Amino acid sequence: MDRRKIRTDLALEARESIQTDAAEMRGVEMDSYEEGTDACITRVRILDSEGARMMGKPVGTYLTLESFKMSQEDEDYHRDVSEIFAEKLEELLPARWNSLLVVGLGNHSVTSDSLGPRVLDNLWITRHLERKGRMISGIVPGVMAQTGMESAEIVKGIVQETRPEAVVVIDALAARSVHRLGTTIQLSDTGIQPGSGVGNHRNKLSRETLGVPVIAVGVPTVVSAAAIVYDTMDALTEVLEGNESTRGLSETIRNMNTQEQYQLIQELLTPRLGSMFVTPKDIDAVVKRLSFTISEGMNMAFHA
Amino acid sequence: MDRRKIRTDLALEARESIQTDAAEMRGVEMDSYEEGTDACITRVRILDSEGARMMGKPVGTYLTLESFKMSQEDEDYHRDVSEIFAEKLEELLPARWNSLLVVGLGNHSVTSDSLGPRVLDNLWITRHLERKGRMISGIVPGVMAQTGMESAEIVKGIVQETRPEAVVVIDALAARSVHRLGTTIQLSDTGIQPGSGVGNHRNKLSRETLGVPVIAVGVPTVVSAAAIVYDTMDALTEVLEGNESTRGLSETIRNMNTQEQYQLIQELLTPRLGSMFVTPKDIDAVVKRLSFTISEGMNMAFHA
Amino acid sequence: MDRRKIRTDLALEARESIQTDAAEMRGVEMDSYEEGTDACITRVRILDSEGARMMGKPVGTYLTLESFKMSQEDEDYHRDVSEIFAEKLEELLPARWNSLLVVGLGNHSVTSDSLGPRVLDNLWITRHLERKGRMISGIVPGVMAQTGMESAEIVKGIVQETRPEAVVVIDALAARSVHRLGTTIQLSDTGIQPGSGVGNHRNKLSRETLGVPVIAVGVPTVVSAAAIVYDTMDALTEVLEGNESTRGLSETIRNMNTQEQYQLIQELLTPRLGSMFVTPKDIDAVVKRLSFTISEGMNMAFHA
Amino acid sequence: MDRRKIRTDLALEARESIQTDAAEMRGVEMDSYEEGTDACITRVRILDSEGARMMGKPVGTYLTLESFKMSQEDEDYHRDVSEIFAEKLEELLPARWNSLLVVGLGNHSVTSDSLGPRVLDNLWITRHLERKGRMISGIVPGVMAQTGMESAEIVKGIVQETRPEAVVVIDALAARSVHRLGTTIQLSDTGIQPGSGVGNHRNKLSRETLGVPVIAVGVPTVVSAAAIVYDTMDALTEVLEGNESTRGLSETIRNMNTQEQYQLIQELLTPRLGSMFVTPKDIDAVVKRLSFTISEGMNMAFHA
Repeated sequence: MDRRKIRTDLALEARESIQTDAAEMRGVEMDSYEEGTDACITRVRILDSEGARMMGKPVGTYLTLESFKMSQEDEDYHRDVSEIFAEKLEELLPARWNSLLVVGLGNHSVTSDSLGPRVLDNLWITRHLERKGRMISGIVPGVMAQTGMESAEIVKGIVQETRPEAVVVIDALAARSVHRLGTTIQLSDTGIQPGSGVGNHRNKLSRETLGVPVIAVGVPTVVSAAAIVYDTMDALTEVLEGNESTRGLSETIRNMNTQEQYQLIQELLTPRLGSMFVTPKDIDAVVKRLSFTISEGMNMAFHA
Repeated sequence: MDRRKIRTDLALEARESIQTDAAEMRGVEMDSYEEGTDACITRVRILDSEGARMMGKPVGTYLTLESFKMSQEDEDYHRDVSEIFAEKLEELLPARWNSLLVVGLGNHSVTSDSLGPRVLDNLWITRHLERKGRMISGIVPGVMAQTGMESAEIVKGIVQETRPEAVVVIDALAARSVHRLGTTIQLSDTGIQPGSGVGNHRNKLSRETLGVPVIAVGVPTVVSAAAIVYDTMDALTEVLEGNESTRGLSETIRNMNTQEQYQLIQELLTPRLGSMFVTPKDIDAVVKRLSFTISEGMNMAFHA
Repeated sequence: MDRRKIRTDLALEARESIQTDAAEMRGVEMDSYEEGTDACITRVRILDSEGARMMGKPVGTYLTLESFKMSQEDEDYHRDVSEIFAEKLEELLPARWNSLLVVGLGNHSVTSDSLGPRVLDNLWITRHLERKGRMISGIVPGVMAQTGMESAEIVKGIVQETRPEAVVVIDALAARSVHRLGTTIQLSDTGIQPGSGVGNHRNKLSRETLGVPVIAVGVPTVVSAAAIVYDTMDALTEVLEGNESTRGLSETIRNMNTQEQYQLIQELLTPRLGSMFVTPKDIDAVVKRLSFTISEGMNMAFHA
Repeated sequence: MDRRKIRTDLALEARESIQTDAAEMRGVEMDSYEEGTDACITRVRILDSEGARMMGKPVGTYLTLESFKMSQEDEDYHRDVSEIFAEKLEELLPARWNSLLVVGLGNHSVTSDSLGPRVLDNLWITRHLERKGRMISGIVPGVMAQTGMESAEIVKGIVQETRPEAVVVIDALAARSVHRLGTTIQLSDTGIQPGSGVGNHRNKLSRETLGVPVIAVGVPTVVSAAAIVYDTMDALTEVLEGNESTRGLSETIRNMNTQEQYQLIQELLTPRLGSMFVTPKDIDAVVKRLSFTISEGMNMAFHA
């Protein structure tokens, strides 16, 4: 099965879906390491347009912070994760950028899409105060059904009027794999395209559209239900493979040509499944908790 | 595959999963008919203990109202569906029951579980008013993590103190099939077992535990992610069946014994999937809309 | 006592506080009439800079719609009031203005200040849809403690980027008299100065700062606690006046010079009172209800 | 003026309003002391029926914790105040009471009345867990307009069904003086009468009605607008007293008989004022903050 058929907002997953040896893949670098006892950092760098085409994502650096601890209840809202996140955010955020506009994308009243607005609820806003240190401003632009405007239009207008040196955008993401829900934070220096994949360039939040650098922070909160169907096919093929009597059948599927495979998947996907999401049962709690973890990390990074 | 492995709160789906001819199935009756242009009513009657055992549900009458219209935005919160629902509710609710306690089960702050509490937000409460007509009282008992008590304990105490003639319970349900999410209302005269399937009898809300008749109203808001895996298997088996070159694969799966099938499914289900739900992308809007449809229908039925 | 000492956002109350005969007051016109059986419309026109100085408000037209019905529960959210409001709004809004940006000022999480954001929750937004009729966009800019930016900066940026032909601003107001709380809507063609009285010109939302006409809609939700103290003084003076034995004392107060009066009031006002508001006991319900009345009226006026 | 005309839920204020020397007042004892640098504890003991009649409150012990720090923002939600509160709560709560039902009175969706429900949101509930230590259960019964039932009926039913050894009730209170809003916590061993003063005995939550001891915890969140009128009168009388030329006025008021005074106040109070509250401008933030202070203190006291 072609795993690339299912969209992911994570560069890490996009890279994983390309079953090519790292050494052989041109235009993309990837390395990962443990951070402390419970966190894993992966850095994907897309170096050129060939890498960008293969990955379906713009040239730039993508850091992924994974920690299963995030998916668990914690009285302290995972202060240790906030610290690692703050450190990684500082990597992408030169100290000389003194004024930042933080943008919380998404819809406050749709749980799985409320991460951005919720982070803003707990961020220290300082631009209007007479004090030393970074000047932080923040905006929740809302979604198009609420405003009639592209988020990019709203943010562009505000950037031109208030002149921050850089923009930090927070958004809820779609992942490919359920085990990344609520356990993963992605940071990148490439900006963001809300509801991406649609190829609507007016709606990009990037240096290209806003005129200042754009750092993007995202947390996967949903997986498309279709992904589960693909994964079941994949797993089934693999299981049958390992079994003497069914190995032939596995090969049958593998040997289908792309057209046949595609048709098979279409037959498995019922129309209603297309508008369905997979989320953790405790998604309300997950989003609440992670928004604190991220706002705390931002407060640390911005006012260090 | 054995579809019964996946729990459903809908009697209709439980009946569908048993692939036995209606004529041959003892202890269970089912019939259905169109109501108006857009709604379908199905009545499942479980007649005796054998039917109850087969269905995994108590003896009684289960009415299912299905309408795709419910899944769509509507300025009027589907007044026509409210009217049909009111009519069906009156079927289960003798006019002589003059005082009713309405119980909104679930958790107001977990979207997919907030249907019960939200219905109570819009219900006409009349017990404390000096007026003619039915005396309606209402309670949102909360969930055990919030109260430390079983809902049944709380409701039983209130029933004994305030002596309503019957109890109406509203809860969000788990369905088996995604096309029933947000399109279906089930009514029954059997009471309800919150978070059912667990076999904890102390927690039943029924005539047996409360001492008065209990009418249950439920709306499916989630499907377990595991159900999608089963369905993919089912659909795959069927698709392969129809294909000359892959019929063997299909037969291999069909010919596995129950133990082998069970093992296969276990290998396909990753541990994380067990704590995942499938919900409509617009679940927040669906729950908000349906809670209005139901509270309106109740207001009509109670104060007709 | 000098009633003008207490700020009011209502032009009607500003006019009332000036105890000058209408015929004698230059630069300000006022007339009022009944509308239907339950509503009263007052039109205050400030004609020139002398009127503006006297009234402490910019030159322009101010319409006040008063109806005690608004303060009562109503299933239909006062559709009749919405209709009168829509009509008055159309008076200020030429049909040729085809694209409007609606701005909901205030703080969604502070009840008495949440009117603007709540109106936006129920407004029909149409700019992004391909359809005939007015193009309505909307924004909730937040308050400075949340954003670090003046609302005027945010709105100005968005206006320059999206080019609406006019702006409609909604805000919660402070009134002078408790009987206007939740019973009054003010419309004006002068724009608005959020948290006004402070004299911060950067923060004005007006044609002068935004470059397009600005219609302001406001509803009083609070009275300062200090106003009650002034009113008690006023009433006391009046009561004593009517009483043979205390008339002298009333005269004593009336005869105090301004400085003495001011000092007296200061002694009556405890420091804590300065940070206190008077609101209706059911302020949460009032704001919820009135935001519907206004959004419905706007929907009627914009899409008539 | 007779300050007792305005209802207060605080025993401390009830005592203050009686201008009698402590030594002379039979049936009531009062003493107070500083606790740490910022808090003041007052203990009022009503000893017998004569004290109860004078105070308009039942026999028992009332502890008031006052600290201006509570009215200020604090990242830690005033942990130090929580600690003092926990200590005082333990005074009223014998360690041998092993199972407690905590009742959050009030209405979650009316800001000034939401303290009780909000405290429950953050309380550690343990009755359903298999662990050592106190068994804590909790309930938010709602208000009569939501349930059609008296809170006392609901709680009584639950107490009889679940058999806690004592009940702890939390409620928002009405104070007499604005400087007590958001700065004061009252604890008592007398139970509580929701919306008290009405003399409806069925609705008392006390040992008498519930059959187990009832500890009450309350925080004043509102003052009636009428209280401001009385205070202005009082202050005015006092100010005029100190002034040579107006002393006569003051004396005139003082010399009015009760009937005359009462009539004067009635003339000052406009009808609308009766349905008005005085609250801090930041009431939403105050209630949110204080509910954390109290739930933290309860968690400390219950699980020490």
